[in-house]
Amino acid sequence: MNTYVTTSRTRVRRLAKRGTYDKAVVHSILDEGLLCHVGFAVEGQPYVIPTLYARDDERLYLHGSAVSRMLKTLAEGVDVCVTVTLVDAYVLARSAFHHSMNYRSVVVLGRAQLVIDDAERMRALHVLTNHIVPNRWEEVRQPNELEMRQTAVLTLPLEEVSAKIRVGEPKDDEEDYALPVWGGIVPISTHVGQPTGDGRVRPDAPTLDLARFDRKAKALP
Amino acid sequence: MNTYVTTSRTRVRRLAKRGTYDKAVVHSILDEGLLCHVGFAVEGQPYVIPTLYARDDERLYLHGSAVSRMLKTLAEGVDVCVTVTLVDAYVLARSAFHHSMNYRSVVVLGRAQLVIDDAERMRALHVLTNHIVPNRWEEVRQPNELEMRQTAVLTLPLEEVSAKIRVGEPKDDEEDYALPVWGGIVPISTHVGQPTGDGRVRPDAPTLDLARFDRKAKALP
Repeated sequence: MNTYVTTSRTRVRRLAKRGTYDKAVVHSILDEGLLCHVGFAVEGQPYVIPTLYARDDERLYLHGSAVSRMLKTLAEGVDVCVTVTLVDAYVLARSAFHHSMNYRSVVVLGRAQLVIDDAERMRALHVLTNHIVPNRWEEVRQPNELEMRQTAVLTLPLEEVSAKIRVGEPKDDEEDYALPVWGGIVPISTHVGQPTGDGRVRPDAPTLDLARFDRKAKALP
Repeated sequence: MNTYVTTSRTRVRRLAKRGTYDKAVVHSILDEGLLCHVGFAVEGQPYVIPTLYARDDERLYLHGSAVSRMLKTLAEGVDVCVTVTLVDAYVLARSAFHHSMNYRSVVVLGRAQLVIDDAERMRALHVLTNHIVPNRWEEVRQPNELEMRQTAVLTLPLEEVSAKIRVGEPKDDEEDYALPVWGGIVPISTHVGQPTGDGRVRPDAPTLDLARFDRKAKALP
């Protein structure tokens, strides 16, 4: 199966042609993104919290302090929504109405589960660390027992998943093309700047290669 | 009052020193951000949807198609959470555990209300359009009656609001500074690239000044 099964909850209804359930597309968006926004409800009130995530095959991992409200709430098995959004361009039309953005987003619905197994917990922290920067796990000090106790790891299967993508030009009303107003696309991209060491970097520490922060390259199949 | 009143729902508990309720700080984050993530629940299932927003004094405006599920749900007066996140830097520590991000985020809780008054609806679309690019409203064709009928506008007061900010260096365990691992900050910034006209831009259309897309400048008090 190369696509996720569409449910009544994940079927993209508005502008359905922007929706896709293709696994390779979903994976590439999840791998390029850095943070997700996690939605969950506490006593009926929704909360949306930005946090790190990482994909491992057909599951997401989330982590955080073992005492955080978010992690404790999610570990109870409540319904959750994890959304990852990449913003690609401003889409400037000749009318206010047709302004838009080019973007790629993924919405994952489900119930997060607390990971108990120590080997899986370690594996999750491995993929979470390398989601930030590839191969970072291999070069840093890995978690000790105390740190593992302070960390909660959650997993969410990629089962109820949809992506929504807008690409291309603005769509103006035909008569508006006669207006002397610029219309087109202004690309947006994320850049990393010059690293600043914290003043305690040893002279024998390898320097950082900025190519490692190229999230588009990381997301290539 | 220069700060928002803290409630049990907005008080930042984890790492409380990262929390702030200062209105000027909240406003600057909201004005620099481009999209928000809106959280709401339908039949107990939370959804988190990326969408445009804009701040007008002490309220946010959201808009969308009058027939979208999100807008129809929010217009019923359900509890909502609007989160805006700016990612400023990778924070690379010498241990996996102390990796972090520098970020600025705002969480707004409350109930969105459908805006009915035509003058306020038009004003909301004005600030929403100029949130994308300053002064864009003044140069494009403004909405006609049909477009206004197709558009729903919601307002959410800035009452229950918190911001959370992390700045600065990684905090490594003292003994880890002896490791030959690079530690410090890698800044992240958003760039706009060369605009690409859609092939139907009239020769007498003013060119786009890319300085208008400087969201940090836009957010200055």
